[in-house]
Amino acid sequence: MVQQRVAVIGASGYGGLQTLRLLADHPQLTVTYLGGERSSGRRWSELVPFLPLPGDPIVQSPDPEAIAAAADLVVLSLPNGLASRLVPDLLDRGLKVVDLSADYRYRSLSQWREVYAAEAREHPRDDAALCAEAVYGLVELEEERIAAARLVAAPGCFPTASLLALSPFLRQGLIESSGIIIDAKTGTSGGGRAAKEHLLLAEASEAVSPYGVVGHRHTSEIEQLATQVAGQPIQLQFTPHLMPMVRGLLATVYARLRDPGLTAEDCTTLLEVAYRHSDSVSVLPVGTYPSTKWVRQTNRALLSVQVDQRTGQLIVMSAIDNLVKGQAGQGVQALNLMAGLPASLGLPLLPFYP
Amino acid sequence: MVQQRVAVIGASGYGGLQTLRLLADHPQLTVTYLGGERSSGRRWSELVPFLPLPGDPIVQSPDPEAIAAAADLVVLSLPNGLASRLVPDLLDRGLKVVDLSADYRYRSLSQWREVYAAEAREHPRDDAALCAEAVYGLVELEEERIAAARLVAAPGCFPTASLLALSPFLRQGLIESSGIIIDAKTGTSGGGRAAKEHLLLAEASEAVSPYGVVGHRHTSEIEQLATQVAGQPIQLQFTPHLMPMVRGLLATVYARLRDPGLTAEDCTTLLEVAYRHSDSVSVLPVGTYPSTKWVRQTNRALLSVQVDQRTGQLIVMSAIDNLVKGQAGQGVQALNLMAGLPASLGLPLLPFYP
Amino acid sequence: MVQQRVAVIGASGYGGLQTLRLLADHPQLTVTYLGGERSSGRRWSELVPFLPLPGDPIVQSPDPEAIAAAADLVVLSLPNGLASRLVPDLLDRGLKVVDLSADYRYRSLSQWREVYAAEAREHPRDDAALCAEAVYGLVELEEERIAAARLVAAPGCFPTASLLALSPFLRQGLIESSGIIIDAKTGTSGGGRAAKEHLLLAEASEAVSPYGVVGHRHTSEIEQLATQVAGQPIQLQFTPHLMPMVRGLLATVYARLRDPGLTAEDCTTLLEVAYRHSDSVSVLPVGTYPSTKWVRQTNRALLSVQVDQRTGQLIVMSAIDNLVKGQAGQGVQALNLMAGLPASLGLPLLPFYP
Amino acid sequence: MVQQRVAVIGASGYGGLQTLRLLADHPQLTVTYLGGERSSGRRWSELVPFLPLPGDPIVQSPDPEAIAAAADLVVLSLPNGLASRLVPDLLDRGLKVVDLSADYRYRSLSQWREVYAAEAREHPRDDAALCAEAVYGLVELEEERIAAARLVAAPGCFPTASLLALSPFLRQGLIESSGIIIDAKTGTSGGGRAAKEHLLLAEASEAVSPYGVVGHRHTSEIEQLATQVAGQPIQLQFTPHLMPMVRGLLATVYARLRDPGLTAEDCTTLLEVAYRHSDSVSVLPVGTYPSTKWVRQTNRALLSVQVDQRTGQLIVMSAIDNLVKGQAGQGVQALNLMAGLPASLGLPLLPFYP
Repeated sequence: MVQQRVAVIGASGYGGLQTLRLLADHPQLTVTYLGGERSSGRRWSELVPFLPLPGDPIVQSPDPEAIAAAADLVVLSLPNGLASRLVPDLLDRGLKVVDLSADYRYRSLSQWREVYAAEAREHPRDDAALCAEAVYGLVELEEERIAAARLVAAPGCFPTASLLALSPFLRQGLIESSGIIIDAKTGTSGGGRAAKEHLLLAEASEAVSPYGVVGHRHTSEIEQLATQVAGQPIQLQFTPHLMPMVRGLLATVYARLRDPGLTAEDCTTLLEVAYRHSDSVSVLPVGTYPSTKWVRQTNRALLSVQVDQRTGQLIVMSAIDNLVKGQAGQGVQALNLMAGLPASLGLPLLPFYP
Repeated sequence: MVQQRVAVIGASGYGGLQTLRLLADHPQLTVTYLGGERSSGRRWSELVPFLPLPGDPIVQSPDPEAIAAAADLVVLSLPNGLASRLVPDLLDRGLKVVDLSADYRYRSLSQWREVYAAEAREHPRDDAALCAEAVYGLVELEEERIAAARLVAAPGCFPTASLLALSPFLRQGLIESSGIIIDAKTGTSGGGRAAKEHLLLAEASEAVSPYGVVGHRHTSEIEQLATQVAGQPIQLQFTPHLMPMVRGLLATVYARLRDPGLTAEDCTTLLEVAYRHSDSVSVLPVGTYPSTKWVRQTNRALLSVQVDQRTGQLIVMSAIDNLVKGQAGQGVQALNLMAGLPASLGLPLLPFYP
Repeated sequence: MVQQRVAVIGASGYGGLQTLRLLADHPQLTVTYLGGERSSGRRWSELVPFLPLPGDPIVQSPDPEAIAAAADLVVLSLPNGLASRLVPDLLDRGLKVVDLSADYRYRSLSQWREVYAAEAREHPRDDAALCAEAVYGLVELEEERIAAARLVAAPGCFPTASLLALSPFLRQGLIESSGIIIDAKTGTSGGGRAAKEHLLLAEASEAVSPYGVVGHRHTSEIEQLATQVAGQPIQLQFTPHLMPMVRGLLATVYARLRDPGLTAEDCTTLLEVAYRHSDSVSVLPVGTYPSTKWVRQTNRALLSVQVDQRTGQLIVMSAIDNLVKGQAGQGVQALNLMAGLPASLGLPLLPFYP
Repeated sequence: MVQQRVAVIGASGYGGLQTLRLLADHPQLTVTYLGGERSSGRRWSELVPFLPLPGDPIVQSPDPEAIAAAADLVVLSLPNGLASRLVPDLLDRGLKVVDLSADYRYRSLSQWREVYAAEAREHPRDDAALCAEAVYGLVELEEERIAAARLVAAPGCFPTASLLALSPFLRQGLIESSGIIIDAKTGTSGGGRAAKEHLLLAEASEAVSPYGVVGHRHTSEIEQLATQVAGQPIQLQFTPHLMPMVRGLLATVYARLRDPGLTAEDCTTLLEVAYRHSDSVSVLPVGTYPSTKWVRQTNRALLSVQVDQRTGQLIVMSAIDNLVKGQAGQGVQALNLMAGLPASLGLPLLPFYP
């Protein structure tokens, strides 16, 4: 089969590692360029002895000219702020880019500057036009625009789980626009591979704690999309919690139904219809609740709905693997579409259990 | 010092083990009787080689007459339904009883029969008067009544964390009575020591999942107390989640403030005042969020408040050790009061970390 | 491609689940029959909502006639003792069988009766000829005999890791035949999916402990093969330890070198040569030690060697996934060979990390 | 009761935190000085919100003069190499010092320079006399010398577990002096609180791996004491493994019995006699094997013995909490003796379980 060539920049972080692992099984995408800042010049097998790659390549310093010579598509897995320094040059050379960072998730550069203030100070940008052009890469909502895009911003892990749960209800106006609460739980790999004290096993194991309560950066990202889908301004409550596990993300979403007569079965049907063409999203029967373990190391999102007839509350549970559907797998979905392939091609959908 | 004598019935389950461990360090309460159904006749060190007890006693079949001869106070740590078969006999013999099960948590026997239907079928009861007499053992709310009681029902772990967070706000009418959401997370030891597939390490590790969504038994227990404290009927949303850890419980409580001008600092002050006489409850400064690890193996509850000025939501986080403040430690608090001692006497309040 | 048909019996235990998951990705083997004792008559999706299978089959009671009608190859994943009640009938009908239990791992039925005494009492057997006929399914040692077999006994998880480490040294007579020590560490999934108290997360998490010290059943299994490979009787020390993790097995093997001049590099070369044709076994460079995480959910065994020049000790470290290379993946390797396919066809060799 | 005053230097690392937590419950030792390099000038509650200390002190830069004014005894919990810069000044001012680092564990400074070469380059020392004077703080072996010492070097965690297992057998000449193998397993807190990639939960969870194979620093520390106890040179094999848990350390020790007739019961009796005066060491009955969970957050070492009559191997299992008996608790034992108190005074010996 004809292979399309992919460059992966930021290869030894978790986003890069997942991307490489996913592409190792892909029938039509081949990694032809490995880039990294800190690890440039080093042989791959010394950096990552556990993931042998064909030819045991040497990691390159990310040079747009060399990338353009070697690849058609690029996945950027870099810290926030750094991607924006590479993207214009890559696009100029005709490459298509999927960026796993937050740099192009906001339509408005000034909003990005506000939400990512520290990064904005360190990395001055004036690519407002690219922010406006970039497509938000939530494949199940934006399939056509992604297929036509040259720059896709892969969504954050929390927004992915939350928006898959909320969007169908918001779009149809079935829930009240205020009072939405997203209580989210994530494994520690969401914090990345750079060593930080609070992510040490000794600290994070046998511990559950909230963080970023009120004002976490993903709040505004979720609200931007929720507002777009609902067609009216949405402000909501988003509270992430750190879980003592490596991977997995569960969003428990609470909203008030407009029509108190809607049942859990009705709402389940609604979700099934909304995602009937999406291989990567499945809806569980009423009364079966998703475990993050059921989607671990897969690109699948598992949704389940419950309704409390007494209180009129809708509860939507949404489980993903934060590093796959929440990051690199979603990136590969976008790559697939940009390469003219089916969105879920080559992506794992079944877990190894337990 | 004069020692008061305590019988512990159901000694080798988690509730019994915690009670024995806590009392091993207690300056004025001494365990003088060990009772157990399945383990009766066996020597303690064979059952539990890791927790040597003075004299290495033999576990007794729980006989009210023998218990009354050996002890003044009794802690029952038995499966739901079983306690009610012992309690009348124990009270008749003048013993004071702390029951860790749900048997006396409801004022109304018929409500218990409804909520614990399976147990009610297996264990027919007609002790409605005792249900009405029993005091709900949330020490920080009911100190005086507990001190005067002969029968105390120790609260469930989820109700403990939830009600400590909610009560001061409900009592003062600061939050709306509808729309309250409790998103709770617990370690697997809350499921007890009896072997169940879903609590196996292989199943529960690297996994987060909701359970009992809408209608979990603790919902009605929380609502009974919340209604009493608020002075008006309260219906709320309670969703427990199973965490991949041994112990620890976090309740993240969402409610809408009646007065949108209240700040997180105001609410923190309110909690500090409410618990200023409670050694076992501490309030964290605004912006510091509790980890369950900070209270592990202690009787301390840690509360923290945040307010979202945009949405008017109040968020109260409440962390406890599910087996100590959520079960056996709370039981010892009640024992202390019933024995005329300070509530927190002999209880650990500082964690070993990490 | 032509598909060969496989029956999986004992489908909802861990061995069965892994087999189904592995075969879901296999290019030339298709599951055409699902059998189970306790779960017979139930729809697959109700039993295992997280692993959808094509057509959502109903689990069948394991009937040899029906199995023979539906399949060419059979994988048995049943408790010890049960397989031997099915195997003769299956072989009579011309099926080829891979048994994941211990029933056919010993050449001598009387040795099996001695080592598995409890099972032998419950399941009387007189299939000594089949014990003698069955091929021990350690693919890297017995490839040709497996390809020609109609009955293969997949090795235990500990013997797999241990024998991969030891065999090349024993075969060449490079280590002393006495004084060999295997200190092994396994995740809790090795204990199976049936609920047992000591495998609860609350018990097994945050805990490391030895078990079966002196006389664990796998000792005799390892010794049988070691003796065969060495050509002289081998008695060794095997001590398993339970680790607080789901999957993964590490054997740290100690032996005394006959020639004190051999270096770690020499020994590494020896292993590389021994396994140069084995896709599923890799040898790490000297000084790089395997983590069980590097092989999780793969069929790869990772070996590493170190030598202490002071003491003359050889240390071989061997990491596998206990449920894949240590069980179901090894079973699929045997299936592949019996079906005339390359041993590692369709098996995952690269981990998702972390 | 008269209180003796203790200074803790390096208060916010794990060794310091444990020391503070242990002393919070101590009846006769009171912390009167908190010192720290990086955290100096900061209020304790900001650094460590989860362990409130009386008076909420400010952490001081470690100044010998100020320490001498405030305290009688000092615990140093600093990185290797740093303690040696403070100790001479502290001793000059009449303070008694327990050092938790490796700086004074070797009688010979030149051996320290060899084993801790990197630290020796960074921290030039010429205190050979102090190295010779310092007492190795394994309380069960050196009680009298510790009681009379002014400088005690608390042993490493691995040497503690290993030497408690080996010493009685070496002293009595019951095992062969060569061929001893120590296969050790430790939780990640042994690596300290400073952030390192390989100790991240995402990396270390669901993973078991060896490290420092042949030549780990603790090898020489163990050999120094083993040689002293045996009265002849001992060289042995020591292999540490990193476990996916926070705390706990298990050493599985293999040695060949000189007298093949010795039984496990004989060896158990030998250990019981050896430790009959040691509150902190217990011996389990034959056939009961220690879990690290049984000693978690206690100062207890649990030993168990097994003998393989076939091979003549002795297997001694030794479980401790690496941060308590393996570090800070052992330090408090030494403090107790230096203060004229019983060694185990104020130390927890019973675990909270699970």
